[in-house]
Amino acid sequence: MSEPSKVLVFGAGNFGSCLADHLGDSDHDVYLWSRQEEVVESLNKTHRNPIYLKDHHFSTNITAVGPEVPGETLINEMDVLLFAIPTQFLRENLEKLRLYLNKEKHPLLIFVNKGIEIGTHALTLEIIADTCGAGIAKAATFISGPSFAKEIVQRQPTSVSVTSFTDSEAQRAAILFHQPHFRCYTGSDPIGTELAGALKNVYAIAAGAADGLGFENNTRAMIITRGLAEMTRIGTAYGADPLTFLGLAGVGDLFMSCSSPTSRNYSVGFRLGKGESLDSIINNLGSVAEGVTTAKGVKMILDELGIKARIATTIYEVLYEGKDIQTAVRELLELPSSKEIDLPSATGGPAKQLMKKLGLD
Amino acid sequence: MSEPSKVLVFGAGNFGSCLADHLGDSDHDVYLWSRQEEVVESLNKTHRNPIYLKDHHFSTNITAVGPEVPGETLINEMDVLLFAIPTQFLRENLEKLRLYLNKEKHPLLIFVNKGIEIGTHALTLEIIADTCGAGIAKAATFISGPSFAKEIVQRQPTSVSVTSFTDSEAQRAAILFHQPHFRCYTGSDPIGTELAGALKNVYAIAAGAADGLGFENNTRAMIITRGLAEMTRIGTAYGADPLTFLGLAGVGDLFMSCSSPTSRNYSVGFRLGKGESLDSIINNLGSVAEGVTTAKGVKMILDELGIKARIATTIYEVLYEGKDIQTAVRELLELPSSKEIDLPSATGGPAKQLMKKLGLD
Repeated sequence: MSEPSKVLVFGAGNFGSCLADHLGDSDHDVYLWSRQEEVVESLNKTHRNPIYLKDHHFSTNITAVGPEVPGETLINEMDVLLFAIPTQFLRENLEKLRLYLNKEKHPLLIFVNKGIEIGTHALTLEIIADTCGAGIAKAATFISGPSFAKEIVQRQPTSVSVTSFTDSEAQRAAILFHQPHFRCYTGSDPIGTELAGALKNVYAIAAGAADGLGFENNTRAMIITRGLAEMTRIGTAYGADPLTFLGLAGVGDLFMSCSSPTSRNYSVGFRLGKGESLDSIINNLGSVAEGVTTAKGVKMILDELGIKARIATTIYEVLYEGKDIQTAVRELLELPSSKEIDLPSATGGPAKQLMKKLGLD
Repeated sequence: MSEPSKVLVFGAGNFGSCLADHLGDSDHDVYLWSRQEEVVESLNKTHRNPIYLKDHHFSTNITAVGPEVPGETLINEMDVLLFAIPTQFLRENLEKLRLYLNKEKHPLLIFVNKGIEIGTHALTLEIIADTCGAGIAKAATFISGPSFAKEIVQRQPTSVSVTSFTDSEAQRAAILFHQPHFRCYTGSDPIGTELAGALKNVYAIAAGAADGLGFENNTRAMIITRGLAEMTRIGTAYGADPLTFLGLAGVGDLFMSCSSPTSRNYSVGFRLGKGESLDSIINNLGSVAEGVTTAKGVKMILDELGIKARIATTIYEVLYEGKDIQTAVRELLELPSSKEIDLPSATGGPAKQLMKKLGLD
């Protein structure tokens, strides 16, 4: 259990809100930024978030701030900044924030967003390095793992992976968050953690599609396990540690996303499996599920690395090239028997570039 | 697709029957041994197994034999012998069989049993070496993975891991079994495959217990992932390849066993979680679930290797030392934050002994 810290959480979405609540519940002094005025007001007046986790009465240790982005004064009072905003909006927010950050003595920076930046297909680590510099990126800490927000606010036993290139920062973040009902396991492969968090959404689409097509347990276990083999192969080629994919950010989160009919990625897959078109699904969902975007980034990474990941490629072809899903499944199943573990020999190009950017080469 | 082979399947239980059916369905010439006369008669007359997969009409390429154990003449006609009998009965059956096996030119031997032998806590590889000699053990091939029998006979897409110290034998087995709806992936770590198949049953008890206690998705994902970390640690200390646990025999089968309320191990756990005593559960189930036996073998292996596996040890204490399950859960959750990946440094003792027995040192 840690000394009370001052924590500013950026983003009052599902996950940001639940983590703010968890930290408030652990007696930390929490500021939660929302860009929506009604959310700020409601949290401060009634301790309710009118949009996410509506049934939950939030910790009274939370002060909501916004809708303006917090300024220098508040930021300089903080021990911890926690980023729970979508990857696609991270760069612009960090661009503003970096002006306030003292590079020698800055708060602990924790990131819980997942996914690859559209266009650049950069990891969050690279976005941080580009905007805030190598020093801050090296100290950045990532939290990932199988953690539904709804269960966290109910104090259901939950576990996460806490990783950073700087061990002492991962330790600090673990001490901040660790509780019997929120167990923190530390690691030193943030690249693997980030890749796992992004890639699993593509396989959640595949698992949903298999269920939509009427396949059962054996098939879902095949997609999870062979998906994991692909994730590990992509991660290794990129320069991550294959064992990271055995952990909470890998297997743990993949298993949750692939067996949860309520997840958006799974739903997209399920409807594709039922024969619906992507356009109709997106119209109906109102926005794009993350795995749909990530599938495109993964395709680019695969082409760049020159490695094969047949399930991910198939999802890409179904989503973006109009491939018929029945044909796609038949082609996958007709592939010949092969070696189970097939890690690439030439590895680490992109990670090496990133490490160079961070001064860790 | 392979040339038709003559295959003798030992054991007409759930899994033996479904594999016999799959091979018959793939146009192999299958003999299925049952020690129960009514099963032999029914399979030959009506193509039904009166005890397992009762609703299924079995392949007409199956000839049932028994109840006497098949003799030298039949065995010498076979290309493949497939063992689908419980580990605890394997030694006595192989003792009889070895008299008929030509050590220079023997059929392909495939094993699908899982678990550790009671008393000796030997793996199947060691039982084979003890009874049939090192040469036959080296060539033995193991099939494991997430595969419910009921779904296999429905041709639901399924995948398995096919492993042997002898690559050419793993290839032969993969070619024999591989179909679009039964995908075979080959590997060369039968020790890891065997350990994974045995250990996962202990974690299925833990997953069932968590559900019985009212915990939800986050907790189940924690047990699966932290259980996998323990399995990998035990396997590595034993001398297996940690990456084997990322595969179908590891993650794949663990995921299935931990999320299947119909599995016996999960049921034992669920009832323990609900507060029922082991005695009452066993009386009611009529027999002991495999994980209950394996928990004892694992405890012995852990003590021998000097490594920690807190979930497995807790299951042992609840099953055999009368530890209260609520207390056990509280103690597990109160453990401090730790490193996520923590593989042992001294590794491979038991595997080295076994490899020596097989002449592979």
